[in-house]
Amino acid sequence: MATTRPAADPESNPRVKAVFDDIRATRKSDFVNNLWRHLAFDAALLERTWAEVKEVMAKPSALDPLTKEMVYIAVSVANACSYCVHSHTAAARAKGMTATQHAELLAIVALAGKTNQLATALQVPVDDAFDAMRG
Amino acid sequence: MATTRPAADPESNPRVKAVFDDIRATRKSDFVNNLWRHLAFDAALLERTWAEVKEVMAKPSALDPLTKEMVYIAVSVANACSYCVHSHTAAARAKGMTATQHAELLAIVALAGKTNQLATALQVPVDDAFDAMRG
Amino acid sequence: MATTRPAADPESNPRVKAVFDDIRATRKSDFVNNLWRHLAFDAALLERTWAEVKEVMAKPSALDPLTKEMVYIAVSVANACSYCVHSHTAAARAKGMTATQHAELLAIVALAGKTNQLATALQVPVDDAFDAMRG
Amino acid sequence: MATTRPAADPESNPRVKAVFDDIRATRKSDFVNNLWRHLAFDAALLERTWAEVKEVMAKPSALDPLTKEMVYIAVSVANACSYCVHSHTAAARAKGMTATQHAELLAIVALAGKTNQLATALQVPVDDAFDAMRG
Amino acid sequence: MATTRPAADPESNPRVKAVFDDIRATRKSDFVNNLWRHLAFDAALLERTWAEVKEVMAKPSALDPLTKEMVYIAVSVANACSYCVHSHTAAARAKGMTATQHAELLAIVALAGKTNQLATALQVPVDDAFDAMRG
Amino acid sequence: MATTRPAADPESNPRVKAVFDDIRATRKSDFVNNLWRHLAFDAALLERTWAEVKEVMAKPSALDPLTKEMVYIAVSVANACSYCVHSHTAAARAKGMTATQHAELLAIVALAGKTNQLATALQVPVDDAFDAMRG
Repeated sequence: MATTRPAADPESNPRVKAVFDDIRATRKSDFVNNLWRHLAFDAALLERTWAEVKEVMAKPSALDPLTKEMVYIAVSVANACSYCVHSHTAAARAKGMTATQHAELLAIVALAGKTNQLATALQVPVDDAFDAMRG
Repeated sequence: MATTRPAADPESNPRVKAVFDDIRATRKSDFVNNLWRHLAFDAALLERTWAEVKEVMAKPSALDPLTKEMVYIAVSVANACSYCVHSHTAAARAKGMTATQHAELLAIVALAGKTNQLATALQVPVDDAFDAMRG
Repeated sequence: MATTRPAADPESNPRVKAVFDDIRATRKSDFVNNLWRHLAFDAALLERTWAEVKEVMAKPSALDPLTKEMVYIAVSVANACSYCVHSHTAAARAKGMTATQHAELLAIVALAGKTNQLATALQVPVDDAFDAMRG
Repeated sequence: MATTRPAADPESNPRVKAVFDDIRATRKSDFVNNLWRHLAFDAALLERTWAEVKEVMAKPSALDPLTKEMVYIAVSVANACSYCVHSHTAAARAKGMTATQHAELLAIVALAGKTNQLATALQVPVDDAFDAMRG
Repeated sequence: MATTRPAADPESNPRVKAVFDDIRATRKSDFVNNLWRHLAFDAALLERTWAEVKEVMAKPSALDPLTKEMVYIAVSVANACSYCVHSHTAAARAKGMTATQHAELLAIVALAGKTNQLATALQVPVDDAFDAMRG
Repeated sequence: MATTRPAADPESNPRVKAVFDDIRATRKSDFVNNLWRHLAFDAALLERTWAEVKEVMAKPSALDPLTKEMVYIAVSVANACSYCVHSHTAAARAKGMTATQHAELLAIVALAGKTNQLATALQVPVDDAFDAMRG
């Protein structure tokens, strides 16, 4: 089930084909996952989304690729995005995430989920020491 | 404002004092932030929460301390926990997070927030390739 | 799967039948979707929920019917309600939402999801100019 | 700060006055808290919201008043509604919630926040035994 | 589908077996639900999670067992955790939750979801009377 | 309070100045609100974020400017982003949102928040009729 129906032949649209080709080249894989196939109902939305994913996730940067994927998983779990949890867990594993690292990631996400609730329930006032604007 | 009122002298309770002492020793700092002062209204809740934070966040493990804090920030942002965003951003900075790393973390969290919404809005079916139970 | 089991013949309960009849009359359709069938395990809850949906969504008002459905989709996406995303996307389409409007709605929801995370991560102080209570 | 500005004399509107009078009578208190003062910018929204709160929260029912307030707190924490956490914690305390019960409530909310994240991160398949539609 | 694959024979690991045995003994049932089977990919995470669930949910305490389950359901709904809503609704029913209590729980959760949105949309300032730190 | 400290003179950075100038020109106003001042700690993040906001929100498109702002408010409320609720409510008012439209928007957001919780609590199966992939 889905709320849009991917075209039978999405790559007959040259803008879609260009994005799919770039996904395959960037990832060095023939596999184009369903998110892109569903986003392809609007070429502009597909282009902009992929451009941003490529810029943020695929370019060498200050954070290593596995750390990036783990942060992505963490946000996707907190936002309860089933698709995203699946896709980014698979991506993290492909980038070398071990079972031990996975378990530790889950322990942190779970602990954060817990202390987030405690701090919100107590409405703890923010310590002055944490304010980046002071001083 | 808060939903509980910390005791004037929380450390007159020896169980609370023991936890605060351990927080100071573990962090090598005299500072005990407000979350612990507010949790101290119930010694058992304080003890269990600190024990878990110490176990997950302060023990040497498969993930480095800065990565852990960045994951913690990511979850706290997604859960809209104002206190936690402040405290863990300060903690990450204390562990060496640069402005460049901070900006990159935010770019990933923002992108994840965006694609989480897209995948949920499209109700994209999970690709078989992502299923860890197959095969 | 579900957490309640709809009655085999829910309309044998005259209160349920009255609500289902009103749903069909209001929507000019024989179709009563699963939300109402599951809510029917408690006639009072069914009656109150439908009364409010009818009042807010089906009565002529200051906002046009399609705008209302798009706002409903936006909230349902942010709350990660799979059922609601499906049902209100179908409703918006039935009220004339084009693929272009759908793509634009998704672009706004995605952008809002993104800047929500940025503002929360930065804990940006609210500008005085935005305060409706000043002046 | 707020996004609407309450009228200087909201009760000059007889519909608003009727609701405020009913709030005072129902709660046996002169205090009308800010939520109602801000909702009063639209009399119909105020009337409908109060009618539902009165129906669900103030009428004798299958759940006792303190249990209802604790459930309300739990949802408000999970939704990160600062105002609601404050108002319903105060209400629960007024209905007799002890510090021990408060601590236990927080422990459950925190644990649920934690295991919610774990189940979502693992994408655990729902056990057939939990399906109310089987059999 | 899931993001981890449970071992074919998880109880060949004695640490996992010990937890599963304790789950069965505590619940007086042979049934070990999928959450535990999936968590078993990391024995330490399994042990700590079960220890906390047992401590918070299974020990006699200031709140009765059914109230605890209803709070758990409320949080799980607000966090959109499909698995958790299923498992804790089944647990609440096993502890005696009637259809009337279930409907009332849902009415409160739904009302809280509604007024949470209203208070957040209006950015209602917290009343001084709700501040536990005053006076 | 905030987690980053805006530079005393952010526009001494020509990349920041260029974005601020474009914000002022696009909005025909001298006012640059705090979100942009805080994002300016990283010029690339500022540039990309503004470029997307301008593209999605300021360009003539299939949805009118007020509808876009109302969708933005709806998402911001559901995500509990205090800053965003303030800034986009002010923006919607500047684009002509009346008090009646505001009240109606809130009524829809509140109702969606409510039925989202009900559908999630009941785990209502999606009707085949809502599946865009069938047929």
